[in-house]
Amino acid sequence: MLVIKIGGGAAIGEGGYANFAADLAAFQEPFVVVHGGNAEFSELSRKLGMPPRMIESASGRVSRYTDAPTMDAMLMAYCGKVNKRLVATLRDHGINAVGLSAIDGGIAAGRRKPVLRGIEDGKTKVLRDDHAGTLETVDARLVRLLLDNGYQPVLTPPALSPGGVPINIDGDKLALELAVALGADGLLFFSDTPGLLANRADETSLIRDIDASDPAAALAAAAGRMVVKVEAALGAVQHGVGRVIFADGRIEAPVTRALAGAGTTVRTSAVAPASA
Amino acid sequence: MLVIKIGGGAAIGEGGYANFAADLAAFQEPFVVVHGGNAEFSELSRKLGMPPRMIESASGRVSRYTDAPTMDAMLMAYCGKVNKRLVATLRDHGINAVGLSAIDGGIAAGRRKPVLRGIEDGKTKVLRDDHAGTLETVDARLVRLLLDNGYQPVLTPPALSPGGVPINIDGDKLALELAVALGADGLLFFSDTPGLLANRADETSLIRDIDASDPAAALAAAAGRMVVKVEAALGAVQHGVGRVIFADGRIEAPVTRALAGAGTTVRTSAVAPASA
Repeated sequence: MLVIKIGGGAAIGEGGYANFAADLAAFQEPFVVVHGGNAEFSELSRKLGMPPRMIESASGRVSRYTDAPTMDAMLMAYCGKVNKRLVATLRDHGINAVGLSAIDGGIAAGRRKPVLRGIEDGKTKVLRDDHAGTLETVDARLVRLLLDNGYQPVLTPPALSPGGVPINIDGDKLALELAVALGADGLLFFSDTPGLLANRADETSLIRDIDASDPAAALAAAAGRMVVKVEAALGAVQHGVGRVIFADGRIEAPVTRALAGAGTTVRTSAVAPASA
Repeated sequence: MLVIKIGGGAAIGEGGYANFAADLAAFQEPFVVVHGGNAEFSELSRKLGMPPRMIESASGRVSRYTDAPTMDAMLMAYCGKVNKRLVATLRDHGINAVGLSAIDGGIAAGRRKPVLRGIEDGKTKVLRDDHAGTLETVDARLVRLLLDNGYQPVLTPPALSPGGVPINIDGDKLALELAVALGADGLLFFSDTPGLLANRADETSLIRDIDASDPAAALAAAAGRMVVKVEAALGAVQHGVGRVIFADGRIEAPVTRALAGAGTTVRTSAVAPASA
């Protein structure tokens, strides 16, 4: 069983969905898709006159401020347009897709941090009613029920927090926790790069393999934003996911090529001792 | 098992969802919710600079023209904002809700009529790429799987047509076909009136009961737009739905009050012969 995360950047649009659909239609193995929607979310927010508000915390972390109308825009972009267009494309290729948010069936829950403090446009701000949140629990029962009955779940943030409030959670984290909960053979992250790059500005600097049995060396080789991704991948492998692949979502046959080694593969290279 | 259609008019907003959630939380019986989203759809379309385009056919039927960007707005309003806000509210009241469009899992399929001819603003028009459609088939397997496993499905248009194209179908029709497919004990339509009115301008002219065993008399009593609703209700009862109720969705405990007789109830009044 594979968990396939399709990034929400502008580079993987509706043409990209068709590439995934054509590729996945030939698959025999069950799979779960988790997708983002950031490009559509930003475009809708801009059209609605709500440009993204970015807040930088004291520690330098940049977050997007999500008030209630912005959460509505997120629901519309992620759960409405992206989820249903992707499901329609997958179904048109013969895949028995079912689109869900992580709110549905209690798939993911977390807590919000309603007050966001930080710097916006050089000024200190205290912004209330933030709908950003942290993923705390994943309940894979609904996803497993669908898989066991021949459906391919297609999931998206947001998740739910107490009081019935949707929260903006990280889609990569959602995919990872689901892969662990389901004991996936593979967790594939597709975005608009060929994989993890030693030099972000150079697409030819692809790192082919990362050995999860030597985490210190793996992390030493990672730089900048890559550290978080490598840490997450190492964690997934430690928790039983067969392998984690970072690969290009802009190309034809993206899943087949990723599984054939075209991206960055993180796995334990140690050969298992032969059984007696 | 009940099928509960919640209309998408402006009068049943998020406050209305809480009324339904509080009422349904006390229910022991399984149920399916089907909802509309027309008020949200119109508001979003207006905000995006795409006001509704209404076309009148030669026979006088008024349709809304739905091109691809308008379909995206429909997906965003119905499947994004309304579906997920409603599911979040239901879940917050302890209901194990799962939100789906009729695209998901092949719940509803139909055909589009891509060319729309008629009068717009007094001029004859031929509009292409229309995403309006006619519901042709309902597949209740996914809905039944969810019900059998303790989930309460929350469904919304659109449906899917060949080629992976979402189509705008009538939500009342979707609810009705599902109720028939599931053999529902009751099909409840909630909108912003107390039920079917003998005089549309007078809310006190409520028709309490319609006897489905005398369809000619039932239709003779109906006038104007009510004819379509009465015909649909009679058809549902003929096809095995226990009773059809048209009731007020703007009040507290809307389901409990509808089942207690507060709206218009369509059913067969004939007493079944005692078994030997």
